[in-house]
Amino acid sequence: MVMKVYGNLMSTAAMRVFAALYEKDLEFELVTVDMKAGEHKQENFLALNPFGQVPAFEDGDLKLFESRAITQYIAHEYAAKGAPLVCEGKPMATVAVWMEVEAHQFDPVASKLQWELVFKPLFGMAVDAAAVKENEAKLVKVLDVYEARLGQSKYLGCDCFTLADLHHIPTLTNLMGTPLKELFEARPKVSAWVADIMARPAWAKVLAMRNKQ
Amino acid sequence: MVMKVYGNLMSTAAMRVFAALYEKDLEFELVTVDMKAGEHKQENFLALNPFGQVPAFEDGDLKLFESRAITQYIAHEYAAKGAPLVCEGKPMATVAVWMEVEAHQFDPVASKLQWELVFKPLFGMAVDAAAVKENEAKLVKVLDVYEARLGQSKYLGCDCFTLADLHHIPTLTNLMGTPLKELFEARPKVSAWVADIMARPAWAKVLAMRNKQ
Repeated sequence: MVMKVYGNLMSTAAMRVFAALYEKDLEFELVTVDMKAGEHKQENFLALNPFGQVPAFEDGDLKLFESRAITQYIAHEYAAKGAPLVCEGKPMATVAVWMEVEAHQFDPVASKLQWELVFKPLFGMAVDAAAVKENEAKLVKVLDVYEARLGQSKYLGCDCFTLADLHHIPTLTNLMGTPLKELFEARPKVSAWVADIMARPAWAKVLAMRNKQ
Repeated sequence: MVMKVYGNLMSTAAMRVFAALYEKDLEFELVTVDMKAGEHKQENFLALNPFGQVPAFEDGDLKLFESRAITQYIAHEYAAKGAPLVCEGKPMATVAVWMEVEAHQFDPVASKLQWELVFKPLFGMAVDAAAVKENEAKLVKVLDVYEARLGQSKYLGCDCFTLADLHHIPTLTNLMGTPLKELFEARPKVSAWVADIMARPAWAKVLAMRNKQ
């Protein structure tokens, strides 16, 4: 039975899961959840994720939600397939640190900026300039730490590409389409890292899937 | 060489790490970081955690930060000692879902409520009633999901106590000292779970360490 991802191609959280599946060369079916129609708050979907957020995921009898839990399952369960996205033993502890950094330092700030600068304009809503300014200052601090970190190792977690990098790609890609691009480009190591992880063939497949829609 | 935790006993993130260490019967040394004096923003500490937040952690040559990455390291590296805090194979995927739920659904709301109702009064600051109301409504939704989940398994991740439960304990304990206690007690399964995880001997040791200060 083919794996199923319940979500849609606007959701950066769902795109994280698609990227992991393509990195692992795994077949999957996208079951589109129409969020405009409120399908994510209806009984069928709440049985998959009681918090009513995409994505949800099925692999046979196993049902999961929360994008970063799904990507971890994919990386561990299909360790032998495609790109290795995790490490064994002690190096994994450091990868885990940088996975937490993405979740608690980068994502809250990047998601707010994405909302203001990507989705609000798309929906014809007014941008909150104060929120942009506040979060831009926070993003600068995060990127300064990343610039130093990427002087110590090629990728955030270690010298190979892992989930710690992958989890950034969807929101990062959206922010690179805004004036904030300059903040990334002003930092040589961050800039090289962004170019590298956005050029992954697996990510090209996610974008192709989105553009086909 | 004994493990070191850089932090203090006011930090719920540091308390998460102490709880995991006591669950595993591991010896450790607390290196107190005086946040009132701004030690967490000084060079020595920034070398341990460039984001300037407690806790940081050392086990021999390995240096980690981000509390949930540290607890995961402790649980995996010392798997054979003390209480098992993780599972092997597929059940771990479900535990990982509920670890993400703690981090992304419970903690942002619970931490804001803790700030308003525990720390602000302690520091003599005025409580923001609108923020309390907004987050209380969000907490109710989270606890409703927990009540349903705890009807399916004894603990959040599976039928045994894991990191998915442990990560809640410090903030939960603080909230149980506020009027929000009623929200937990109004839900029988949540209430039994709270009583169970707060009664862990390892947690009693963390509280004893705090009260001794």
